Amino acid sequence: MSKEYWLPTGDLGIVIERADGRVALVNTTDREKLAVIDGLGDLSHASAVFSRDERYAYIFGRDGGLTKIDLITRAIDRRVVQSGNSIGGAISQDGSLVAVSNYTPGGVQVFNSDTLERVLDLPAIGKDGKASKTVGLVDAPGNRFVFSLFDSGEIWLVDFSKGEPVVTKFEDIGKQPYDALITPDGRYYIAGLFGEDGLALLDLWHPEQGVKHILPNYGRGEQRMPVYKMPHLEGWAVAGNKAFIPAVGRHEVLVVDMNTWQELDRIPVHSQPVFVMASPDSRQIWVNFAFPENKHLQVIDAGSHKHLTHLQPGEGVLHMEFTPRGEAVWVSVRNKNEVHVYNTQNFEKLASLPVASPSGIFFTARAHRIGL
Amino acid sequence: MSKEYWLPTGDLGIVIERADGRVALVNTTDREKLAVIDGLGDLSHASAVFSRDERYAYIFGRDGGLTKIDLITRAIDRRVVQSGNSIGGAISQDGSLVAVSNYTPGGVQVFNSDTLERVLDLPAIGKDGKASKTVGLVDAPGNRFVFSLFDSGEIWLVDFSKGEPVVTKFEDIGKQPYDALITPDGRYYIAGLFGEDGLALLDLWHPEQGVKHILPNYGRGEQRMPVYKMPHLEGWAVAGNKAFIPAVGRHEVLVVDMNTWQELDRIPVHSQPVFVMASPDSRQIWVNFAFPENKHLQVIDAGSHKHLTHLQPGEGVLHMEFTPRGEAVWVSVRNKNEVHVYNTQNFEKLASLPVASPSGIFFTARAHRIGL
Ligand code: DHE
Ligand code: DHE
Repeated sequence: MSKEYWLPTGDLGIVIERADGRVALVNTTDREKLAVIDGLGDLSHASAVFSRDERYAYIFGRDGGLTKIDLITRAIDRRVVQSGNSIGGAISQDGSLVAVSNYTPGGVQVFNSDTLERVLDLPAIGKDGKASKTVGLVDAPGNRFVFSLFDSGEIWLVDFSKGEPVVTKFEDIGKQPYDALITPDGRYYIAGLFGEDGLALLDLWHPEQGVKHILPNYGRGEQRMPVYKMPHLEGWAVAGNKAFIPAVGRHEVLVVDMNTWQELDRIPVHSQPVFVMASPDSRQIWVNFAFPENKHLQVIDAGSHKHLTHLQPGEGVLHMEFTPRGEAVWVSVRNKNEVHVYNTQNFEKLASLPVASPSGIFFTARAHRIGL
Repeated sequence: MSKEYWLPTGDLGIVIERADGRVALVNTTDREKLAVIDGLGDLSHASAVFSRDERYAYIFGRDGGLTKIDLITRAIDRRVVQSGNSIGGAISQDGSLVAVSNYTPGGVQVFNSDTLERVLDLPAIGKDGKASKTVGLVDAPGNRFVFSLFDSGEIWLVDFSKGEPVVTKFEDIGKQPYDALITPDGRYYIAGLFGEDGLALLDLWHPEQGVKHILPNYGRGEQRMPVYKMPHLEGWAVAGNKAFIPAVGRHEVLVVDMNTWQELDRIPVHSQPVFVMASPDSRQIWVNFAFPENKHLQVIDAGSHKHLTHLQPGEGVLHMEFTPRGEAVWVSVRNKNEVHVYNTQNFEKLASLPVASPSGIFFTARAHRIGL
């Protein structure tokens, strides 16, 4: 390994090159692409988490591949293909375990983060006795993982804090949870429902209280209007006591009071929102949109709910990621094969990097956060 | 440089060896001391910030020394002695500037974070025409620094977002601000007042509204009771919408509603609190105490306000730092020359490291946060 690579890891990140099974390694200080790492399989929908030392990225590929890449040597460290079709994963609070949720054959697999040896194969057999797809897998404080069973409508909590996993199940949480999020403090786990309106809420400080339904009108409503894409819940923006959430099918961002879970406001936006993300200082809300309106990007003030700017980076704005302290935001513009970097103060474009079919952007600072 | 040192920087940290002008380099994954770096001058009261790549630590010494150490080569990279008596500093949002506040001769100095060349010497000449000590210097979103003038009772905002610094002054904010904090989102700057009761609050989202007084009873009160140490404000624990703050002189932690700035509760504690700190999941509040009760450590539940545990690590519990995702907390036990690591789930001691007269503990994850 040459000294050229001798870099600290705090300002690194990766961008998924979705069409080619590669990831681009980037640096957020110099805003440059450092390397491209190849051979990760089908990354047509991929996400990533980081080891607690910010040296390794674990990438969850569409084909069930879990690839551990070394950001210092810029190479694949280990790779396993753990299922036929996976959708995402998480790393435990202490960094020792990586868990992956699967569509096919369903269930959750847990791996040792050093070796990628499997430590748990947890089939998600629901109350109905059938194997279920799992979604919305997140890590929670206390070395726990939480996820939802799409087919049987359950939320499971897997606690690794005493070594051996202990599973707690919450049944009848609602029809077809399709994605979920955990609030940045790791307290509330919220699942979006595909099969009915409303959201399922589990307060992890009080699991004994069970799962509640909130926002009964959140969803597609009676008319089952056309929805181009169910919005991603990862992107829920929590700013102070307000959550900004993408409306389903409507051209709106909903503002919800997180103390009462009541709707405070609806902000009209350009089209159907996909990701609604808060800047690290909770002051700006960035929104991207579903196809065919995905060349747009809107920015809303979290205090006044007014629009701050409307950018048009280009077709295929798929994902955004803020630098850890929020001075800039990186945006994937797939059809242009570019990642743009914008100054969050004045919305000027600071840089444009060549990245082939960029989608998810993940910076190493995620290593230090709960629930990503 | 040997390959032994070839480490990522995400799980590193430093501990100030206050008696010897040294810092210990530690690793939070293996819970070990990796090296000791010497020659930093008077560290009898020192604090630190990190570069955005988590490679360098900037240490603010009591003698006005600003030392930049390289965590990869484990050596001093650069050092300047910038004043006769300094008390703390901050790094700008974009990582390009390091600012230091001074007791003697007062004022603030700003340095290029790469070279430590001085880019601004800002004497803090108050409205009274005299040079003032500066305290409570923090970074704020938008490449700004905020600090208070002890002698003249002012808060100054220095905005570097357009290159040349622009200074905005708030006068008559209260008597003798002695320390300050900024909320984790970078919105509220709050200064504690030595010369009168109450606190000064500046909402950085609305600087045009000026500085308000909050918590009029916060302070030493009419009887001017003996106060062993004015509590540190850094340690204000913000958990959801509640702030947990050390009472002045009293054996209490105050709980304040951050929407209304009204007192919600007072939690009795062992003695006079110094630092009151929230775990990263906002669920636990850790409290240490002023001499002669500084062998104690109490932990409070942020939800119920009940006591969870009372530890006695040993004489001289000076500082605590949580690992970034909160599974453990590191505690300096000065008189034992030890740093203890506790599991935050069950309060078991996980490790004890030999560190000479340890005081402040600073982990590299601070690089990614606002206002530290
Ligand atoms: C359940 C789910 C997760 C959470 C994973 C986890 O638990 O970590 C997720 C995460 C993601 C994440 C990770 C977000 C994060 O911050 O962790 C990204 C970037 C992302 C970009 C896209 N997703 Fe995603 N996404 C779906 C589902 C999900 N996406 C779909 O069902 C849908 C609509 C169709 C599909 O292809 O599966 C879909 C299409 C997209 C896209 O079209 C996006 C915008 C671009 C792309 O590359 O496919 N999804
Ligand atoms: C104003 C101020 C700051 C904020 C600096 C900044 O702006 O970044 C600060 C920070 C600090 C920080 C940094 C906290 C952080 O999280 O950034 C620490 C660890 C700390 C440990 C102590 N402080 Fe501190 N401290 C004072 C003032 C301050 N201390 C005092 O006036 C006092 C009472 C007397 C003195 O010696 O100056 C004092 C005694 C102490 C201690 O006795 C402590 C516990 C142990 C020690 O080593 O001196 N102070």
